[in-house]
Amino acid sequence: MAEEDAPLVLYVEDEPAVLELGVSALEEGGFRVASASTGAGAIRQLETPDAAFAALVTDIDLGDNSSGWEVARRARELFPDLPVVYVSGGSAHEWASRGVPGSVMLTKPFALAQLVVAVSNATLERPGPGG
Amino acid sequence: MAEEDAPLVLYVEDEPAVLELGVSALEEGGFRVASASTGAGAIRQLETPDAAFAALVTDIDLGDNSSGWEVARRARELFPDLPVVYVSGGSAHEWASRGVPGSVMLTKPFALAQLVVAVSNATLERPGPGG
Amino acid sequence: MAEEDAPLVLYVEDEPAVLELGVSALEEGGFRVASASTGAGAIRQLETPDAAFAALVTDIDLGDNSSGWEVARRARELFPDLPVVYVSGGSAHEWASRGVPGSVMLTKPFALAQLVVAVSNATLERPGPGG
Amino acid sequence: MAEEDAPLVLYVEDEPAVLELGVSALEEGGFRVASASTGAGAIRQLETPDAAFAALVTDIDLGDNSSGWEVARRARELFPDLPVVYVSGGSAHEWASRGVPGSVMLTKPFALAQLVVAVSNATLERPGPGG
Amino acid sequence: MAEEDAPLVLYVEDEPAVLELGVSALEEGGFRVASASTGAGAIRQLETPDAAFAALVTDIDLGDNSSGWEVARRARELFPDLPVVYVSGGSAHEWASRGVPGSVMLTKPFALAQLVVAVSNATLERPGPGG
Amino acid sequence: MAEEDAPLVLYVEDEPAVLELGVSALEEGGFRVASASTGAGAIRQLETPDAAFAALVTDIDLGDNSSGWEVARRARELFPDLPVVYVSGGSAHEWASRGVPGSVMLTKPFALAQLVVAVSNATLERPGPGG
Repeated sequence: MAEEDAPLVLYVEDEPAVLELGVSALEEGGFRVASASTGAGAIRQLETPDAAFAALVTDIDLGDNSSGWEVARRARELFPDLPVVYVSGGSAHEWASRGVPGSVMLTKPFALAQLVVAVSNATLERPGPGG
Repeated sequence: MAEEDAPLVLYVEDEPAVLELGVSALEEGGFRVASASTGAGAIRQLETPDAAFAALVTDIDLGDNSSGWEVARRARELFPDLPVVYVSGGSAHEWASRGVPGSVMLTKPFALAQLVVAVSNATLERPGPGG
Repeated sequence: MAEEDAPLVLYVEDEPAVLELGVSALEEGGFRVASASTGAGAIRQLETPDAAFAALVTDIDLGDNSSGWEVARRARELFPDLPVVYVSGGSAHEWASRGVPGSVMLTKPFALAQLVVAVSNATLERPGPGG
Repeated sequence: MAEEDAPLVLYVEDEPAVLELGVSALEEGGFRVASASTGAGAIRQLETPDAAFAALVTDIDLGDNSSGWEVARRARELFPDLPVVYVSGGSAHEWASRGVPGSVMLTKPFALAQLVVAVSNATLERPGPGG
Repeated sequence: MAEEDAPLVLYVEDEPAVLELGVSALEEGGFRVASASTGAGAIRQLETPDAAFAALVTDIDLGDNSSGWEVARRARELFPDLPVVYVSGGSAHEWASRGVPGSVMLTKPFALAQLVVAVSNATLERPGPGG
Repeated sequence: MAEEDAPLVLYVEDEPAVLELGVSALEEGGFRVASASTGAGAIRQLETPDAAFAALVTDIDLGDNSSGWEVARRARELFPDLPVVYVSGGSAHEWASRGVPGSVMLTKPFALAQLVVAVSNATLERPGPGG
């Protein structure tokens, strides 16, 4: 349903069932989605020369000994303005110390509307407090 | 469509037709919804020992001599961080004096997308201005 | 699907295919939509004595030598509180100098969820920073 | 130091020493200040036909069986857009249930810079989230 | 009092007495200030090759047939992220239609604390809603 | 000038001259200030059993092989709501990837008014977007 050039979201999640639901909700909302199931795979996509993501959605506890905290940090090193939405069950309490500025935390289990709204908000261009 | 542990919204509305539309829009968005048609009924649910609501949506003019202003105030006494969305036709102008801090006002008749977005925004964890 | 008195959005777009998609997404979300394909047509609707729009969505590059910047400026002269959502491909970089305060910029091609969320956010009553 | 037409703040406080410090900090910042030591006195000033306050600063526990919650609620009935800054020691925890939308809570003892910044922020015209 | 490399504010005002007060308040707060008394003079400074302003403060009704609206628009064409604070007596009502996104409006006569706080807020780096 | 129980700010800075200016500006604004010149010293103060800080201001490049990023992360582990203001010259560009959510970045050399306003904003209680 998403147009060819629609905004592209990178979705990182190691539970296939959760990933599938999330991806299909975002696609129904008109986003294109690239997915990764490991932190290493996500970082590889972020480091691809022509990468052009509109937002990053990342689970915290990824299978491969890596975490969404690391993925987001690397993403922001490469793209300082990239909107970040974290998704987690057990690690939400760590967000205040490990999240990046301006990010959003979605606690699992979440409603799909929350995901779509979080990504939509994050990708709208609005002036920050300083102009 | 909502998962078993999806965020639970308490929806207080005394017009069955409006309640039904609102509940089904929220459920379609993936929220679970508990409903009440009177202020007394809503407060009873809020005071239940294990109550764990993610947000309160409340109409203002409830049938039983009570009002949504009272429901929200009681809710915030019990749960100071509970997100509140008011819904009203004739009483929206009272929000500036009777609403609680950080609440949102939806004027009837509203678009269902406004309801779903208002509840989704309210339940995303984001830093406030002070950190 | 929108109720008779649902919030009315004025949607200004000269590409019929884009307009049709946008209008139907907003209507599915429960908004009523009035549309215009030229700046002059939009301004005529805004100047109609009983005009009561809940929000303005406007493309920037309109066919008739007019632009969305002008439409929004005229709209705000008439209705200083009217929420404004700009939509553009090539002109998004001009928003910082030509947009009105508190507006939002949607870059084409956008996801329909972004449009619906932008309009929903814009039409919720929330206190600004000053009260 | 305040100019003749500088923004006028209504400051309600029943402890003379606190009032004096607060008033002089605001005046040094260039505001004019009208003061009241009771809720009744404050409401009388708010109801004066030509009242034109730029902001309300109110203590919560006022001597005359009234509270700052009531003062602010009455103020907002009369002036829905009036910025409100509450000041309190023991009652700050009630703000979530008894404060008005868009208000700010200053916990006693506060730094005078917090008071001046809170009032300055509240009186700057900025677009709210909806435009 | 401002350090040699302190943030530099461009202050545009054609009333010498107002300019002097504003400049000295900002300097006392630690900002460096460059001033202009006409729109043309301000734009000349903005277009200077090495111009590096931290914020623009501009009166609306400038003597030379130009206006602060034009100065800010030109400033944002050159520096899309430049924080803008407008200052005006009679023209504040035009801000909603003629101001730039993310700007702030200070109504004359203002308190000097409002000016210093407005410029300080505008020059702090904080994440916008989108990250 | 600060009262005995005024809000206490922890200020971490290894350049004595900068520390002295910052501390005295905050004290003039009515804050109490505890200072540390190393990351280790700051973390020791944060871990003190009765620590009760209203805000953390921290330089990034600290002498002892530690950084303000680490100090703030540890502070947020202990106090998830603690407001954080970073101060830096050369490391400001790392804030998007290494800062904590809801923090503010002050670029050196800063104006003292920016510091006082940043700390004042951060310590005012205001509702976040979700209530």
